[in-house]
Amino acid sequence: MIKVVKIGGNVVDNPELLREFVKDFAAMPGMKILVHGGGVMASQMQKAMGMTPLMVEGRRVTDEDTLKIVTMVYAGWCNKNITALLQAEGCNAIGLTGADGNAIKAKKRAPVYVESLGTDVDYGYVGDVTEESVNAKFIYSLLEKGIVPVFNAINHDGEGNLLNTNADTIAASVAIAMSNYKYRTPREVCCRCEECTHCSDDGRLTHLVDLIYCFEKDGVLYDKDDDSSVIPSITPEEFTKLKSEGIVADGMIPKLTNSFKAIDKGVRKVIIKHARNVLNDKGTTLKKG
Amino acid sequence: MIKVVKIGGNVVDNPELLREFVKDFAAMPGMKILVHGGGVMASQMQKAMGMTPLMVEGRRVTDEDTLKIVTMVYAGWCNKNITALLQAEGCNAIGLTGADGNAIKAKKRAPVYVESLGTDVDYGYVGDVTEESVNAKFIYSLLEKGIVPVFNAINHDGEGNLLNTNADTIAASVAIAMSNYKYRTPREVCCRCEECTHCSDDGRLTHLVDLIYCFEKDGVLYDKDDDSSVIPSITPEEFTKLKSEGIVADGMIPKLTNSFKAIDKGVRKVIIKHARNVLNDKGTTLKKG
Repeated sequence: MIKVVKIGGNVVDNPELLREFVKDFAAMPGMKILVHGGGVMASQMQKAMGMTPLMVEGRRVTDEDTLKIVTMVYAGWCNKNITALLQAEGCNAIGLTGADGNAIKAKKRAPVYVESLGTDVDYGYVGDVTEESVNAKFIYSLLEKGIVPVFNAINHDGEGNLLNTNADTIAASVAIAMSNYKYRTPREVCCRCEECTHCSDDGRLTHLVDLIYCFEKDGVLYDKDDDSSVIPSITPEEFTKLKSEGIVADGMIPKLTNSFKAIDKGVRKVIIKHARNVLNDKGTTLKKG
Repeated sequence: MIKVVKIGGNVVDNPELLREFVKDFAAMPGMKILVHGGGVMASQMQKAMGMTPLMVEGRRVTDEDTLKIVTMVYAGWCNKNITALLQAEGCNAIGLTGADGNAIKAKKRAPVYVESLGTDVDYGYVGDVTEESVNAKFIYSLLEKGIVPVFNAINHDGEGNLLNTNADTIAASVAIAMSNYKYRTPREVCCRCEECTHCSDDGRLTHLVDLIYCFEKDGVLYDKDDDSSVIPSITPEEFTKLKSEGIVADGMIPKLTNSFKAIDKGVRKVIIKHARNVLNDKGTTLKKG
């Protein structure tokens, strides 16, 4: 089994929460991949440099100077700090952008019409990632050696340009790509988990892949004001019902829609939980009915 | 054969020179490793953030905020920009700090007495690297796959701290470590060069390693004001003579002293040349007499 864990800026920007998370993530057995954001620090850096961060529908408009800043913050400080902390916990991490080992290619986003503004927006050096642009072979060659890839939101277009992409989408794309990657590894150098019965042969096989989104809540809630009202599991049918009842609303709708897409494309399950629960089974599990 | 090439800030900070160098470096056949500096941009960033860069005897005093800046500049923008440019030239580069894959460990420098100041100086998050702290096995596992490691000056102490180190020393330490690394590779997946006759067997062997320092001059000069007066080669005996005659002086003395130390420890030759000549045989070659 391979676990793909995504942590957001709320963990990355909080040294105490980050240290705790790093300890737990390092203790997770088996093959694993970390994907991190880091948006708050990027905005702070922009402001310190006299720039005004411009966000349109949750995405940062990224001109040349902004690209330098986000690359410095995400791929520089955040990524290397997390990697060094993981190494200190005995986890052999390697911090990567998509350019490193040509791990992930992104496609520059063409200007798009934004309804809320009534105009086209050129996001600049912003890219989009899909599962096809993930170099699963390279990533697997690291996992096989016991190395833990740590991705940030910076990828490349293969023509020498870095692009600012979305860490949630990277996590989903990597999880889908890895769940479809056909490897050839004897069981003894495989993930060694008990659940992966389909790794028992040494022919060309695929891994079970779980995608874990860590965020600031304990999971998807019945009542958004009651942190203890976590919905333990959701099937696609239940998701339709929860939407129609207005229980799942706003930003949670695209998050869950994209998660079910990942499941349709091969990911076994998606778990939405608080970063402090990465080692236990708390949270909301999305899976096929 | 393995080539370890070091480029300084004068190349990294100059987009045109960098693009030309990247093209040439990508065209270099065989196994290769790049090490880069990037000091000028770090000072610019410090100033833009309202900080005053403090250098003592050529080394940056690195407090916590300065460490963030140099990590962002060296490991973030410079390293990822170079990696993306190399990928665009078909060179499968991977940008690394010492923390990535535990490639290089550094030891935090204790406060040292600085004669010119008449006092102890605490350099802060500054580390020192030796050939013993280089993870040659990991680096070789990348080279073997045709992946080209691109190192910057940020390394880690293994206890969760990043440290600012010296790129010249990293290049020499990596070159020494690789020249002493005993690998076991059949010739067909080896460096494929004609010169390495000792790779013709598939037992445990070592590679010939050349260390190439690119700087802003065409080589070591007889007359420092005449760029055409390049000394084509220097042996240790000739170095002693050139020093006593005052032809090699100032900053060139430690550079050459350290280069001859690297040769004593296993590096075949050290070449000092301009970055634009990385593909040709111009420059000054240091080797055993």
